[in-house]
Amino acid sequence: MTQEKLERVAGNGLLSRRHLLGMGLAGAGSVMTNSALGADAGLQIPSWSKVPGPGASGYGNRSSHTEHMQRMSGNPNPTYPGGGASRSPLAELQGTITPNSLHFERHHAGIPDIDPSMHKLVINGLVRQPLVFDYEDLLKYPMVSKIHFLECSGNSGSLLRPSPADGSAQSLHGLVSCAEWTGIPLSTLLDEAGVDPAAQWVSAVGADAASMGRSVPIDKAMDDVLVALFQNGEPVRPEQGYPMRLFCPGWEGNISVKWLTQLKLTSEPSQFRDETSKYTDTLPDRNSLQFTFPMGTKSLITSPSGQMALNRQGIYQVTGIAWSGRGSIRRVEVSADGGRSWADAEIESHQSDKALARFRIPWEWSGGSAVLQSRATDSEGNVQPTRDAVLADHGRLSSYHNHCIQSWAVNSNGGVANVYV
Amino acid sequence: MTQEKLERVAGNGLLSRRHLLGMGLAGAGSVMTNSALGADAGLQIPSWSKVPGPGASGYGNRSSHTEHMQRMSGNPNPTYPGGGASRSPLAELQGTITPNSLHFERHHAGIPDIDPSMHKLVINGLVRQPLVFDYEDLLKYPMVSKIHFLECSGNSGSLLRPSPADGSAQSLHGLVSCAEWTGIPLSTLLDEAGVDPAAQWVSAVGADAASMGRSVPIDKAMDDVLVALFQNGEPVRPEQGYPMRLFCPGWEGNISVKWLTQLKLTSEPSQFRDETSKYTDTLPDRNSLQFTFPMGTKSLITSPSGQMALNRQGIYQVTGIAWSGRGSIRRVEVSADGGRSWADAEIESHQSDKALARFRIPWEWSGGSAVLQSRATDSEGNVQPTRDAVLADHGRLSSYHNHCIQSWAVNSNGGVANVYV
Repeated sequence: MTQEKLERVAGNGLLSRRHLLGMGLAGAGSVMTNSALGADAGLQIPSWSKVPGPGASGYGNRSSHTEHMQRMSGNPNPTYPGGGASRSPLAELQGTITPNSLHFERHHAGIPDIDPSMHKLVINGLVRQPLVFDYEDLLKYPMVSKIHFLECSGNSGSLLRPSPADGSAQSLHGLVSCAEWTGIPLSTLLDEAGVDPAAQWVSAVGADAASMGRSVPIDKAMDDVLVALFQNGEPVRPEQGYPMRLFCPGWEGNISVKWLTQLKLTSEPSQFRDETSKYTDTLPDRNSLQFTFPMGTKSLITSPSGQMALNRQGIYQVTGIAWSGRGSIRRVEVSADGGRSWADAEIESHQSDKALARFRIPWEWSGGSAVLQSRATDSEGNVQPTRDAVLADHGRLSSYHNHCIQSWAVNSNGGVANVYV
Repeated sequence: MTQEKLERVAGNGLLSRRHLLGMGLAGAGSVMTNSALGADAGLQIPSWSKVPGPGASGYGNRSSHTEHMQRMSGNPNPTYPGGGASRSPLAELQGTITPNSLHFERHHAGIPDIDPSMHKLVINGLVRQPLVFDYEDLLKYPMVSKIHFLECSGNSGSLLRPSPADGSAQSLHGLVSCAEWTGIPLSTLLDEAGVDPAAQWVSAVGADAASMGRSVPIDKAMDDVLVALFQNGEPVRPEQGYPMRLFCPGWEGNISVKWLTQLKLTSEPSQFRDETSKYTDTLPDRNSLQFTFPMGTKSLITSPSGQMALNRQGIYQVTGIAWSGRGSIRRVEVSADGGRSWADAEIESHQSDKALARFRIPWEWSGGSAVLQSRATDSEGNVQPTRDAVLADHGRLSSYHNHCIQSWAVNSNGGVANVYV
């Protein structure tokens, strides 16, 4: 394939997504030809092909060559024991499912070491009959399995600061992950307790030392909320709420209360510490906006992304993830000229409601400067906004719920950096 | 809810799948009432709620309370070093995604410890231009992400023996798993090499000490086969072929060659050792049938299942998995009377092509004997056969490709066992 045959679909090198072929010959530099196929050193039989390796095992581990893929967390804060977060290595992951060991974390008092046989889930308050469940009880209930993203409402918050941080996809946006969650529809348990018509909210409390609590509107609770017991097939991990967590699809992560131990039905929201001191949006007039539950329509280019370096001119696969708290992803557009022109990327994964989608589009880098952006549209028609639009709407007193378009600048040396345009 | 209100949909206790409510009160015995909600010992604040726990980490682990969930493998055979298999703990998993650490394994000479920077993938034979790829080259190619099951063609083979084995879902059927696989469409790489019109087969060889090889028809190779680099978001695990494996959706697992190092285009199948001595079906007339590629339409009740014990009368959630190598799952029926009457189960998961689906139906066990069965139908209209039908068709000289209906007998003591009916 020659350069002339490449079909350009937007400015500064974006190519037709149908260009699946000939990437190597067209500039990826990834292919060797006949000369390498002789008896040269490159094709000697490697040592690992000469002797049998170890056999099967009970519980597998990843390759030692991939152990650099780690969640990233800040330094522990002695005045906030166990508090903080860790971020998924988004630039190194592919597909849409996050392996459980690399799912982002956010803790308010660390991870409780819960013995499931001693754990209780209470449903009380405005119900016909208060109920208590053991873990073993709950395993007997009907469950459903759904693939959903989870995103912390503080994700991407640093983009609202006046100056762009020197960050990566992981450090700036790593508080989002996606898994198959299996659990009991909360409506099943609430129906069994008998919801009083006066009940408008469900106040969920965790068994961690922070007694993390959040209030869920009854309509959401009766719709698609789960008491999740399994994550990607196995029991929910300790850092995700073992033995059980609330899971509120599409909503800010904090409301999916981990280590769930109480559901109290109330007529008003409980105004827990974490829905007043945190997770409210302080508006430009300094009023607090309660509540912003669904996470916005959003996308992120994970490669090329911040702190990477392009080491050759030629064709790259621009790839990333997109999601919406209000539906499925219908469209992702990509720009290589800072938003002046756009082309449709291909969605290369399953597409389901409130789940990550994976997009891709080929792009030819000719050694000049470029600004890569992606823009998602969801099934409800919501379009991901620019940073300027988010600032105009929300101001910068609050950094929660930012879903603005990310701009990655590529300079003439191939360096990639977070910028504002 | 009282017993009289239960809607019976088939013999021996199968209930309407719409019975989501009142499972506890209807007999699951899982609910405590007001008396437990006082200041009694059951609701004391547990120790783990009183002090902060450890904070975030780089790579998470599962709870120590779940470490009994292990893959099951046979004893090592000294004359077959590294050979053998391990089986997924199907009865303990939920949903449809198998966590990578518990995905089944099958090795022919153990797991090679491959340095990805030294690994090569060669495409040669009947091509315009032989090619060699490094791992880093391949990471630059366009990839797609698909959720697919993988099943060893030897799975469930013991059910064709004359007497039913005392086995569990894991020991009898654990050679099936499901993951999101991300990789390069093989057609992309073959197009780049330039397929000679005389090429009818692609002979794939692994870098393990067995040089495991299999021949893939060119039509399949150009259709949906991947060179898979990622599994559930992270790099393919060593026991699944790190740094890369072939992945042939819906086809017998052995053909998805792990540690892939060569793809040679040929006019005839290569008749590798593992497609002659193994993985052919010896028919009743002692002819060998080559090749049986797609795995059959199949389902399995994972709970209740073999070697479990029901410890109370009342309502149980019958649940399990279903899959087809030829499409998606359209329907799963369940019988509690050994196949005399059937009721439709609910599909409680995403449904995609050549992927596991999760089904569920409520069933009331009144203390008598029962035989639980499930029967899948796929999107092509293929219906899972009985054991008798498989034996009539294939005989029992070969145990590959068995996808017959599994019968789990429940006796009056609540014991569950593999039986033939």
